[in-house]
Amino acid sequence: MRTQVGIIGAGPAGLFLSHLLHRAGIECVVVEAQSRPYVEGRVRAGVLEPGTMETLEMLGLDARMRREGMVDEGLDIRFRGKNIHLDLPGLTGKRVMIYGQQEVVKDLIGARLEASQPLLFEAKVSRLSDLDGDRPKIHFSHDGRDEVLECDYIAGCDGFHGVSRQAPPPGHIINYERVYDFAWLGVLSRSRPLGDMTYSNSDRGFALCSRRSNAVSRLYLQIDANDDHTSWSDDRFWGELHARMFDEDRTEIVEGEIFQRDIARLRSFVASPMQYGRLLLAGDAVHITPPAGAKGLNLAVADVRVMAAALIEFYRTGNKSRLNGYSEKCLDRVWRTVRFATMLTGLLHRFPEHSAFERNLQLTELEYILGSRAAQTTIAEQYVGTPLDLT
Amino acid sequence: MRTQVGIIGAGPAGLFLSHLLHRAGIECVVVEAQSRPYVEGRVRAGVLEPGTMETLEMLGLDARMRREGMVDEGLDIRFRGKNIHLDLPGLTGKRVMIYGQQEVVKDLIGARLEASQPLLFEAKVSRLSDLDGDRPKIHFSHDGRDEVLECDYIAGCDGFHGVSRQAPPPGHIINYERVYDFAWLGVLSRSRPLGDMTYSNSDRGFALCSRRSNAVSRLYLQIDANDDHTSWSDDRFWGELHARMFDEDRTEIVEGEIFQRDIARLRSFVASPMQYGRLLLAGDAVHITPPAGAKGLNLAVADVRVMAAALIEFYRTGNKSRLNGYSEKCLDRVWRTVRFATMLTGLLHRFPEHSAFERNLQLTELEYILGSRAAQTTIAEQYVGTPLDLT
Repeated sequence: MRTQVGIIGAGPAGLFLSHLLHRAGIECVVVEAQSRPYVEGRVRAGVLEPGTMETLEMLGLDARMRREGMVDEGLDIRFRGKNIHLDLPGLTGKRVMIYGQQEVVKDLIGARLEASQPLLFEAKVSRLSDLDGDRPKIHFSHDGRDEVLECDYIAGCDGFHGVSRQAPPPGHIINYERVYDFAWLGVLSRSRPLGDMTYSNSDRGFALCSRRSNAVSRLYLQIDANDDHTSWSDDRFWGELHARMFDEDRTEIVEGEIFQRDIARLRSFVASPMQYGRLLLAGDAVHITPPAGAKGLNLAVADVRVMAAALIEFYRTGNKSRLNGYSEKCLDRVWRTVRFATMLTGLLHRFPEHSAFERNLQLTELEYILGSRAAQTTIAEQYVGTPLDLT
Repeated sequence: MRTQVGIIGAGPAGLFLSHLLHRAGIECVVVEAQSRPYVEGRVRAGVLEPGTMETLEMLGLDARMRREGMVDEGLDIRFRGKNIHLDLPGLTGKRVMIYGQQEVVKDLIGARLEASQPLLFEAKVSRLSDLDGDRPKIHFSHDGRDEVLECDYIAGCDGFHGVSRQAPPPGHIINYERVYDFAWLGVLSRSRPLGDMTYSNSDRGFALCSRRSNAVSRLYLQIDANDDHTSWSDDRFWGELHARMFDEDRTEIVEGEIFQRDIARLRSFVASPMQYGRLLLAGDAVHITPPAGAKGLNLAVADVRVMAAALIEFYRTGNKSRLNGYSEKCLDRVWRTVRFATMLTGLLHRFPEHSAFERNLQLTELEYILGSRAAQTTIAEQYVGTPLDLT
């Protein structure tokens, strides 16, 4: 098999890239290890920055988002029974869109298959070869057969546990990492959500109330990294959520049927550089932001916008300078975004290792933000995201 | 001996308090363990917030500061060879004054002695008694004699190593603390200073160039906590300063005769509450900010402004409610200020314990501040200080 760009992974990074390239007349093949229902069912964050919305629009894939998504203008942070309300349009002139990542993924998969563009599910990549040469290859198995896909370039969009990041010679890519001692237990509940995305830093730990629709809430609790979700009965979950949200009479947050649960370990991770030879890496394959701030999808889209622009220039002019500068171009945004999510994680969680001094500093920072428009603006402007720079 | 308010310590907290009380017709005695030359010779920071300048003005003690001090409108932070210039009036509408703490101390001592108000040097306090009753006592030795000063209230302004904070029963005051593994080596040099207060975070460590006059520079280097200053020859000092300030051809920073050196261990410290019975504590006796941001003197002045207002109300009306609320009133500002200085310390120093990930986050934060007016405003507004709230 032969294509121009071989894309490993049908998550947001790989799927967006496939549409951006297709639109520019560049052919690509997407190979995904999992099945279509599995990929479409993965529940992730659901906050789209303006740059991500514009990318969907540019691709003509924004119809369902415009119909079903909810424009979000506020972000609330509770602590000590107080509330910091961040008025996003007032502070930044921008809004975000609430639309689940798995809905975006469904839209992208549907459109690609409808256009009869190659997208192979249950295609497990075993290894990459010839990354140094002009014809790099993806070796994978599909429908019981071993296949080789020969490409001009390979886009590694196969997530944190994928094979792409491991493919370059040892020592070429350096990993920067922080792993946290706690996790997020996330649930979906059939219940009316709070009007604003609401984070809380309570003495009992972090909580987050967000929404997926007017009838579905997405709710999170900070839990110990060693907890499994069977230790969290529905009753325990609701009791803890009310307490952490300072909803003492249990009337503000509406309870409902919990129909989905997942646990995410928290991690901050950057792999650098994001390229080797003819392999270009994007999204979770090379960086993980902790979930506070909901940056993962948006950062993946920013990566592949840069990658697509570089590949388009290469196919139009033969000039490789953008391709050669891909990693450097992306890493500026990557580090800024990982820093923001790491800062927000530090601001909002209870850290078992914190001294009483450090806990007081954290609460004092929240008091400062409550009273400072400048401090509120710093959070809001990073939350809504900075414009993509594709120069 | 008998007075209304016994003040322990002739640093900025004790001296400002004595003038504030004297102006209101309240009598007080200041007892200071050290000699006058020692107290007047202690080199400390030299940045006065508007609230501190206003306090000197209110006391009629601002003449020399107006004459010899230098209005400062800028704060620079260097990193990676780049510079963040904080335009203080542009960002906050405010300016600060460069005027050494020891000059303030000289002015306050001179004025108090000229007015023939009691100020005893080399008066060593051994213990405090009857703090629970109506007539608390300061036991001290002076001129070879043991003395007892009976007071209505005692103001403990005797610094981090003083006896005041230790006087209440064990367990009453809780200490919150962080000690750093590094120190500041500070020098005074006869050389033309840089125009702006300039901090630098370099891979070699932190440095700071500030000024005391147009002909005297106050310069600092981060050093290991175990270094003694004899290991820092003048040549080594200048070489390191040029390198850390990205002054590669050694032409920007003018070298001169180094005529004073000191080493300060870095510490963040808050003791709470700041009172017990008839003992009220202020300044370094109950909180230490790390030196970045130059907050120590300003915070001490804020404390004693609140304390003086409470004592004045008590002597005018007999009402103790302000006195009883003294600590709570002060601690809000104390925590905010300690948090700011701790944040600035974290932003500007090389931490031996930092992972490569944490070092990159720190530099990324500086990149973010470089490009964000909101982030610059957060630093500037905290650096110039918030107005005193004496309601």
